Amino acid sequence: MTLDQLAECLGATVHGDGSRAVSSCASIEEAGSDDITFLANKRYARYLKSTSAAAVLISLDEPCPEHLTRLVCDDPYFAFRNAMIELHGFRTHPEPLGANPDHVSAQAAVHPEAVIGEETRVHPLATVERGVCIGARSHIYPGVVLCENVTVGDDCILYPNVTVYEGCTLGNRVTIHGNSVIGQDGFGYATHAGAHHKIPQAGNVVIEDDVEIGGACAIERATMGTTRIGKGTKLADLISIGHGTTLGEHCLLVSLVGIAGSVHVGNYVVFGGQTGVSGHITIGDGVQALAQSGIAGDIDAGTTVGGAPAIDADTARRNMLASTQLHALFKRVKKLERQAKPDDSSN
Amino acid sequence: MTLDQLAECLGATVHGDGSRAVSSCASIEEAGSDDITFLANKRYARYLKSTSAAAVLISLDEPCPEHLTRLVCDDPYFAFRNAMIELHGFRTHPEPLGANPDHVSAQAAVHPEAVIGEETRVHPLATVERGVCIGARSHIYPGVVLCENVTVGDDCILYPNVTVYEGCTLGNRVTIHGNSVIGQDGFGYATHAGAHHKIPQAGNVVIEDDVEIGGACAIERATMGTTRIGKGTKLADLISIGHGTTLGEHCLLVSLVGIAGSVHVGNYVVFGGQTGVSGHITIGDGVQALAQSGIAGDIDAGTTVGGAPAIDADTARRNMLASTQLHALFKRVKKLERQAKPDDSSN
Amino acid sequence: MTLDQLAECLGATVHGDGSRAVSSCASIEEAGSDDITFLANKRYARYLKSTSAAAVLISLDEPCPEHLTRLVCDDPYFAFRNAMIELHGFRTHPEPLGANPDHVSAQAAVHPEAVIGEETRVHPLATVERGVCIGARSHIYPGVVLCENVTVGDDCILYPNVTVYEGCTLGNRVTIHGNSVIGQDGFGYATHAGAHHKIPQAGNVVIEDDVEIGGACAIERATMGTTRIGKGTKLADLISIGHGTTLGEHCLLVSLVGIAGSVHVGNYVVFGGQTGVSGHITIGDGVQALAQSGIAGDIDAGTTVGGAPAIDADTARRNMLASTQLHALFKRVKKLERQAKPDDSSN
Repeated sequence: MTLDQLAECLGATVHGDGSRAVSSCASIEEAGSDDITFLANKRYARYLKSTSAAAVLISLDEPCPEHLTRLVCDDPYFAFRNAMIELHGFRTHPEPLGANPDHVSAQAAVHPEAVIGEETRVHPLATVERGVCIGARSHIYPGVVLCENVTVGDDCILYPNVTVYEGCTLGNRVTIHGNSVIGQDGFGYATHAGAHHKIPQAGNVVIEDDVEIGGACAIERATMGTTRIGKGTKLADLISIGHGTTLGEHCLLVSLVGIAGSVHVGNYVVFGGQTGVSGHITIGDGVQALAQSGIAGDIDAGTTVGGAPAIDADTARRNMLASTQLHALFKRVKKLERQAKPDDSSN
Repeated sequence: MTLDQLAECLGATVHGDGSRAVSSCASIEEAGSDDITFLANKRYARYLKSTSAAAVLISLDEPCPEHLTRLVCDDPYFAFRNAMIELHGFRTHPEPLGANPDHVSAQAAVHPEAVIGEETRVHPLATVERGVCIGARSHIYPGVVLCENVTVGDDCILYPNVTVYEGCTLGNRVTIHGNSVIGQDGFGYATHAGAHHKIPQAGNVVIEDDVEIGGACAIERATMGTTRIGKGTKLADLISIGHGTTLGEHCLLVSLVGIAGSVHVGNYVVFGGQTGVSGHITIGDGVQALAQSGIAGDIDAGTTVGGAPAIDADTARRNMLASTQLHALFKRVKKLERQAKPDDSSN
Repeated sequence: MTLDQLAECLGATVHGDGSRAVSSCASIEEAGSDDITFLANKRYARYLKSTSAAAVLISLDEPCPEHLTRLVCDDPYFAFRNAMIELHGFRTHPEPLGANPDHVSAQAAVHPEAVIGEETRVHPLATVERGVCIGARSHIYPGVVLCENVTVGDDCILYPNVTVYEGCTLGNRVTIHGNSVIGQDGFGYATHAGAHHKIPQAGNVVIEDDVEIGGACAIERATMGTTRIGKGTKLADLISIGHGTTLGEHCLLVSLVGIAGSVHVGNYVVFGGQTGVSGHITIGDGVQALAQSGIAGDIDAGTTVGGAPAIDADTARRNMLASTQLHALFKRVKKLERQAKPDDSSN
């Protein structure tokens, strides 16, 4: 594909030799002469001089050495994403081993009354229980277990060893990565007379359209009602969502985030890695939390927070920086105290 | 079911119209006219006025609007739990797909000499190895792997894709949720001449009666002896327990807790979410740790701790609150220093 | 085995009665009269007096009661490891249930053109896709899924329910514990016009020789290029590694560590439990991080760090200790402020 052709796909303008061919995408440090690269994070601008890339996806206002061919675009990272699709494409899913003409493996365990949509693949060693209904063009990889009455929409991908408990619902274009578990019982006990008595977890989990969930996540079903993951929300890996919690639309949760139960999270919320959120609170739309935040109370919409307890992120950053000098501060205060009462030995 | 009937089951007293029927439980905000609700957390008392619930489970001394029918009881949360059982019940487990009359699926991989108790279900795509012994009325869901010589008691539930390594023992009424792994090798290496040499992990894991373990947990086998989870202890999701650690009875561990190896944890201990515990220490009975605590040394019985390093929780809470003003404190100290030596430019 | 025989295996010198027999290893507190024990951590030296062990592996310079037989060696922990191998040995792997003479279970799902090396075992309910190539003497446990074109070396062990996505490569003597997932898509989205657009994750994961990965870990494939786990590196449980990150050789990562994407980690790096590492940074050779560190910037080789943001560990420890008195410090500063301006009510 020539740079001219690629630029046309991406809606970019070529500044330089558009006849040159590219075959793949690469990071700016590692790109070779057949690669297109991009500059979205200024941290990498220093590599513009030395990169061997055939061209760079870059915004118009970004300084760039003249020798380097530019594909100028408004949103270089989004253009890079589209270039990845043009040059690499998304994963091609295999036909199930031992598949019948209906794309269901003879080695899968499928209830005869389960409903499986057109062009949906069920791989060997997957389990599809009674009452399950899967839409069209979905992929159920080996080791996936869909318990009774699970609903899966169209164009979903459930990677190997995903578990979905009974009665949970997945929308369209939902992707769940390997070894995640959806709809296990919420952590609910009534402690009475010295023992923790299990509370039936009679609710479910609803995962809306266009959600992607990473590897080895664990999303609890609600005690009553629904644990909900809103449309377009993306979870990284090893994330725990408590029972009855609602995540809004288009949120981003980085790995190892833990959200307790009965939390209401708004839309476009971003939680940095290892952030923890206490139960029974409300996080407004557009809230962002730095990595390792500890959120114990309601957060107003539009706020960026950090620290534990989480507060305004600017203050949190200043506090964290100050905390690196904390022992020295104690010494300084001690010195002030000595100065303040040089003659006072009674205190 | 009428409120009178329900109250009788729960040992509660009806204050109001006991002839009214209820069909389900709901939270106080979401309850409709057919629902019974409860008040256990005072945070929700403000909803008493507006709830549409048919009645509320509540303690005698709690103020409540007159129009709302009360089911008065000593422990409203425990009563709610029992109402959940009356009105919703626990999960009904399906008969395995392709089950023989003995309730073992023809699509499971079962060693011919494995012992499987009466009324125990083995689902398709589960593996039961040589020397495994399972008690009565247990459920082995699809994708569960019981390695050699695992023992499972009566009335256990192992949800999909649970892995139990060889030689581990589960008591009676043990529940393990999807994708948890029990008995993998402890993290034990002897570093010698520039490489980490694996130490055989020759011990096992013992899980006592009435333990429940959440989704995607990982509990290491001991190097020698046993990693033990005491009777009645409950783990939420994504929890890591190190090799040779002992958890006492009736503990509660919230999601993403990590406990290193060779830790002795007493009875009735509660660890908040994302708490970390260093190896080779002792946590006394009844200890409680706030979320995100970092426990690096022994903790006396009966203490509530917080922070990292974890100290008495009241002090920790005050310190955490103070830490939100830390940068400002540095400025205040700077000002004091300027005041203390206005004429001293040598320092 | 007599102590003399064992000492010869271990290269140790017997100080005491070498004719005594031992049959197993045990910790110094729990050892009985047939056990050999060891002293590597001075914390346990107090048990030397009271241990019932037949003998102790110990260094020459360590004080030891005269009645206790010593096996003197340079590196007691490494000697203990070798004694564990002599007396207990590593796990013996079972022959797959329903195995053919070629050690492949008839209940596995294996593509006819997959290449499976000599003496390699494929257990029931494992999946081996098209293009997979497994070396000799490896063990593929039940529920393992090897997607298309995965390469596994010689003498590897993949425990139950491990998932390896397409195109990933494992070297020789790689061990992956139960329910870990390798090669799931990196957390990469381009946010554009209010939605998070998935970026194809076209790279892979390469796991070099002698790596061991614990239970329920999640290692993302690279967007482009490779996420790499260097030779001899060991991961505990529930660890998240982001896309495009490189771990060097002989690193040790304790449970619940999270490393974001595009991080370069050197050789012999140690991350304590629950440590978090931000993306796009470089961690030098030999860096050690205390548990719960938060690393947000480059760390020079050879440094030991702690705290969040992570700084030099000695300072971090002093700061953490100081932080336990933080509320009291605020009071002390308040008092100094009152003293500094006793007559100034205008401030």
